[in-house]
Amino acid sequence: MSKIPEYAFELTMRVRDYEVDSQGIVNNAVYLHYLEHTRHEFCRMAGTSFRDMQRRGIDPVLRKLDIEYLHPLGLGADMVSKLAIRREGARFIFIQDIYSLPDMLPVVRANVTVVCLENGHLTRGECLAEAFAKYL
Amino acid sequence: MSKIPEYAFELTMRVRDYEVDSQGIVNNAVYLHYLEHTRHEFCRMAGTSFRDMQRRGIDPVLRKLDIEYLHPLGLGADMVSKLAIRREGARFIFIQDIYSLPDMLPVVRANVTVVCLENGHLTRGECLAEAFAKYL
Amino acid sequence: MSKIPEYAFELTMRVRDYEVDSQGIVNNAVYLHYLEHTRHEFCRMAGTSFRDMQRRGIDPVLRKLDIEYLHPLGLGADMVSKLAIRREGARFIFIQDIYSLPDMLPVVRANVTVVCLENGHLTRGECLAEAFAKYL
Amino acid sequence: MSKIPEYAFELTMRVRDYEVDSQGIVNNAVYLHYLEHTRHEFCRMAGTSFRDMQRRGIDPVLRKLDIEYLHPLGLGADMVSKLAIRREGARFIFIQDIYSLPDMLPVVRANVTVVCLENGHLTRGECLAEAFAKYL
Repeated sequence: MSKIPEYAFELTMRVRDYEVDSQGIVNNAVYLHYLEHTRHEFCRMAGTSFRDMQRRGIDPVLRKLDIEYLHPLGLGADMVSKLAIRREGARFIFIQDIYSLPDMLPVVRANVTVVCLENGHLTRGECLAEAFAKYL
Repeated sequence: MSKIPEYAFELTMRVRDYEVDSQGIVNNAVYLHYLEHTRHEFCRMAGTSFRDMQRRGIDPVLRKLDIEYLHPLGLGADMVSKLAIRREGARFIFIQDIYSLPDMLPVVRANVTVVCLENGHLTRGECLAEAFAKYL
Repeated sequence: MSKIPEYAFELTMRVRDYEVDSQGIVNNAVYLHYLEHTRHEFCRMAGTSFRDMQRRGIDPVLRKLDIEYLHPLGLGADMVSKLAIRREGARFIFIQDIYSLPDMLPVVRANVTVVCLENGHLTRGECLAEAFAKYL
Repeated sequence: MSKIPEYAFELTMRVRDYEVDSQGIVNNAVYLHYLEHTRHEFCRMAGTSFRDMQRRGIDPVLRKLDIEYLHPLGLGADMVSKLAIRREGARFIFIQDIYSLPDMLPVVRANVTVVCLENGHLTRGECLAEAFAKYL
């Protein structure tokens, strides 16, 4: 995870204070919410949406997620969430990094593997590959 | 909300530490999760389940919720969540109180109004009334 | 809750897809997160913040919340969350309404009662009254 | 992650229906909540608790988490969450697997790396090693 990829998309967000736990930092699970929301906004930017996919019977699901926690975010902190994508057969790998704002410290680094179900069956991923063609 | 009702169901739960926010107490929204989970477990006890209802096209939805926050729960605290139910026409009113364990301090008191949709349309509630007959 | 108040603050937000439950609509508890986030952003606009308050030993806590669910939000929906505030002795009443965008349908209407603790003890609310002076 | 470890602890849980998202399965982030809750209950069993640690200025924090999603859980599903632990210098590695009940299908497999801060500084982990001595 060491080389910085060429990101295809980025989204700024602010920590919502309820996302901070009793340790005074954003709870570890919440970063997966940030990452998912970033992927879904990326889909929108690419001209599709999670809602559209559901209507067409397409279900992107997670197979694997590796995350490193590098620098915690606290109450009211701002961040930018960046995303690159590549395809490996039926799998789409999202390289997702979050940085604090304004100082750009690395917050988390994640690799997220997504496959695509269609009416419950694993697909070869053509449905997503088309939508993401110019970012792959 | 002052008289203690005759409860039809109770459920003990323990605070999960991620539910506690930076103030060191369970976040206000989390109590709605506790209340919902209590209602759903009550349905199970009554012989139906949220999943079964969804399969049959029945959608119980919230119309109104009043909650008083009386005594906060902290890390690792135990509680008992109690529920009574009454029907007012198409509406089901859940009287839901949570108490800390073992000292039985009142934590929250809530009145929750639920109506029942069937394939998207408001019903007269017969679907739920049948399931809950002996608790009304 | 029928008269529309003069709002002091508003915040636009988009539903994050993980906030939508198996019924295809935003889960009832999530609206309390939206309402809290709106109050905290209002504090910022008023020149203070939840983090600053915590540092000074000031803890705003909820006493009571009444919410009506009027029109559900679904995947990817946009909303505007509006807030008015008034003081009643030691209590601050937030009148909080959320509307769907762009059609401005009422989504939820809530009254939220907040009191202010200082080092664990109930205050007369002077700490918040000062910050909110021009909005009361 | 292929060999089944000798687990030191296990916890049964039931999916709470609000944890299920619009795809009809438990949202990916929620499994991190299950894993955290399992670790904290393991601490209790081992004679300490997250609350006690916080009081003593000890802060266990996540450094890394790898998770494979194998079989999704749906509404009302039951599970058992199992945990093994080993120490690598200052790092504690939790091997955490969740299985569906009653059929014992593998749901997620995770490796979670935790380090221990004491008053904000990284420790050599003696604080936790003592508590977990007989499970390492």
